[in-house]
Amino acid sequence: MSFELTILGSSSALPTSKRNTTAHLLNMNERFFLVDCGEGTQVQLRKQRLSPARIHHVFISHIHGDHVFGLFGLISSLGMMGRQAALNLYGPAMLEEMISGHLKYFGSLPYEIVFHRAVGGHVIYRNSSLEVEAIPLLHRSETFGYLFREKLRPANIIKSKIDQYGLGIEDIKRIKEGHDHITDAGERIANSELTLPRWKRRSYAYISDTAYFPEITETIKGVDLLYHESTFLEKDSELAKKTFHSTARQAAEIAGLSGAGTLLIGHFSTRYKNASLFEDEAKTVFSNTIAVNDGDRYSLPQKREDE
Amino acid sequence: MSFELTILGSSSALPTSKRNTTAHLLNMNERFFLVDCGEGTQVQLRKQRLSPARIHHVFISHIHGDHVFGLFGLISSLGMMGRQAALNLYGPAMLEEMISGHLKYFGSLPYEIVFHRAVGGHVIYRNSSLEVEAIPLLHRSETFGYLFREKLRPANIIKSKIDQYGLGIEDIKRIKEGHDHITDAGERIANSELTLPRWKRRSYAYISDTAYFPEITETIKGVDLLYHESTFLEKDSELAKKTFHSTARQAAEIAGLSGAGTLLIGHFSTRYKNASLFEDEAKTVFSNTIAVNDGDRYSLPQKREDE
Repeated sequence: MSFELTILGSSSALPTSKRNTTAHLLNMNERFFLVDCGEGTQVQLRKQRLSPARIHHVFISHIHGDHVFGLFGLISSLGMMGRQAALNLYGPAMLEEMISGHLKYFGSLPYEIVFHRAVGGHVIYRNSSLEVEAIPLLHRSETFGYLFREKLRPANIIKSKIDQYGLGIEDIKRIKEGHDHITDAGERIANSELTLPRWKRRSYAYISDTAYFPEITETIKGVDLLYHESTFLEKDSELAKKTFHSTARQAAEIAGLSGAGTLLIGHFSTRYKNASLFEDEAKTVFSNTIAVNDGDRYSLPQKREDE
Repeated sequence: MSFELTILGSSSALPTSKRNTTAHLLNMNERFFLVDCGEGTQVQLRKQRLSPARIHHVFISHIHGDHVFGLFGLISSLGMMGRQAALNLYGPAMLEEMISGHLKYFGSLPYEIVFHRAVGGHVIYRNSSLEVEAIPLLHRSETFGYLFREKLRPANIIKSKIDQYGLGIEDIKRIKEGHDHITDAGERIANSELTLPRWKRRSYAYISDTAYFPEITETIKGVDLLYHESTFLEKDSELAKKTFHSTARQAAEIAGLSGAGTLLIGHFSTRYKNASLFEDEAKTVFSNTIAVNDGDRYSLPQKREDE
């Protein structure tokens, strides 16, 4: 079960020759989830040899150009590629109106677009192995972060225990669900004695764009991979406050308060020449910080609770 | 006086990792004219070290995504860069409606956008040294090509003639306008004896997208640099006809009928693996053909009539 994040764009409002505007792709067990879609995202996907056709769900944080201008080309190209499966778009209320208004100038599509309005604090998508919760952020327009988290997987039974206790199909089903086993003689065998340690639930939180907003840390508590926007350095914290963005130091504080595993920072303002300035600043607060680049990939390995 | 064309995108509807969707930049004496604006054009400009801020006039051929999806990001970025000068957009009637509808979701701009509706067969822009004529094309929506042509420049007087004939300021002005000179003795001196050969009027025609449409060749007669779309190869001419596009061979026929200097072909369908297939096919009809790549630059030197 893969859990791999690819950074498709790491600049803030203005793209540069090296950094596209914001987009992330999460590959969760070969299902692709696109998170934001700055201009040029479809080409960034192709450069990473990730087929746009495999995207069925797109999560949009907010309706600012550097997070959505790639949607038009992506939607259009999918149509030209002969797509038939629906494309699901999740985001603020304005997303549907904006995209629908746009589409009327560009002909009909051979597939359906299904809009899902994000509701803060609610799981807005789930499949058999993953759920996605919308997190209200503090920005200049209605903005959501998204927490992607694996569901708890059924326990794996220790094979030797099947013979040892003469377990039948019904017994195994109940044990996998987490129940203890009661033998014919009435003895209770603890679930933990019958099963391997559970798989940890891997998680990735996408937090962009937002002012410093520690209210989110309860929701993302213990997240493995935290992406947090870091538009400014602390020396420009007044500007960050005014524009409802965060500094590298603030992103690191959020990572610390959340008990995150790894902090990824991006959405760098082009006023600074070097992304290492952001990484250096954040590391003074949260050492496991990485300033991302377009094309970077971050994989979370599967681990059991005792690893 | 520079006259340099930069290719910013050479793919057709679908971009690839090597070819962006369509955009050209004409640098005419350090004035920048953008022609079409596929997704990612602002980044293509940056990669070519051409500042988007220097663009004041954008000519749009038609409202298909691969020719306009870069406008949203360009318009937005110019605003963030603090632009104050107006941006002039030229194109079909639907351009204003489409852009205006879009803009209402993305806040106000610090500069004005001025829309100019293209009218086929008319000069729709002129400055002191250049004029641009709109050329109706044959496509699935209202589509224009554009002919950029230098104005006739005043003649340069041969310096020695000033002393020889005792020419005054008024005489010189009239001679530069093309008149002969009448001496005090009543002798007529031919203008050609007093002036250097005139500068040739350099020209570039942008023809995309269109079915084979030889009606345009009168308008672009003798054009120095002819860009003509070449979406298909001749073996797929039925598909070209059906979709109102041209084959490489048809582009070459237009170049031949127009007496063009150089034919540039682009807008290649991604169904073909290699652009040299297009160049080879076109060259059987028009030898001076180049299949363009993103980033290519083509300069026209200044020449006098006798060169």
